[in-house]
Amino acid sequence: MERDMLTWALLFDTYGELLTEKQQHICDLRYNQDLTLGEIGELEDISRQAVRDNLLRAESQMRELEDALGLVARNSRLRQAAELLKSISADGQTDSDTILKAIALIEE
Amino acid sequence: MERDMLTWALLFDTYGELLTEKQQHICDLRYNQDLTLGEIGELEDISRQAVRDNLLRAESQMRELEDALGLVARNSRLRQAAELLKSISADGQTDSDTILKAIALIEE
Repeated sequence: MERDMLTWALLFDTYGELLTEKQQHICDLRYNQDLTLGEIGELEDISRQAVRDNLLRAESQMRELEDALGLVARNSRLRQAAELLKSISADGQTDSDTILKAIALIEE
Repeated sequence: MERDMLTWALLFDTYGELLTEKQQHICDLRYNQDLTLGEIGELEDISRQAVRDNLLRAESQMRELEDALGLVARNSRLRQAAELLKSISADGQTDSDTILKAIALIEE
């Protein structure tokens, strides 16, 4: 669990559907509801260590998925592209440089 | 194997890295090099049925990944968005409608 919580929350948001239901539930309590391992253990009536094992397995799977597919990084580029295009669209001005930048972000 | 070969080739191109090495090898022979099950079996010295089983497992995994992540469909939308933006960029004209369409495709 060396990455920060926001990074795991993003990974969970992107790849959560590929985890088991149990993993999804524990990840939700941890990353979205910000509960401690001890709190999750009490809630689920399992040991703190079992919570930790579940999270480590889920995190390892999500890391592998991101290494292979790079969706979190890609989504961030696509958000940037959309922001650039919105800024042009709001200006009502042609700005080919910005359009080319957006294309590059989309195609990267 | 009810989908057409082009669809499987696209799915393999997108999710191939998440398959085992053996599955990747057999999928490559089937979808990219267009070999028959019998030809792959001879080449790999396994039965036609073993080739088929490997492909079915790979296809089922790729279908699950696409159901959960929808990357093939998304890549197609992003290609469309890039094409739209390239057409504006080549014209040198402002076209807010096209920009808005591209944003919608990116954000869908």
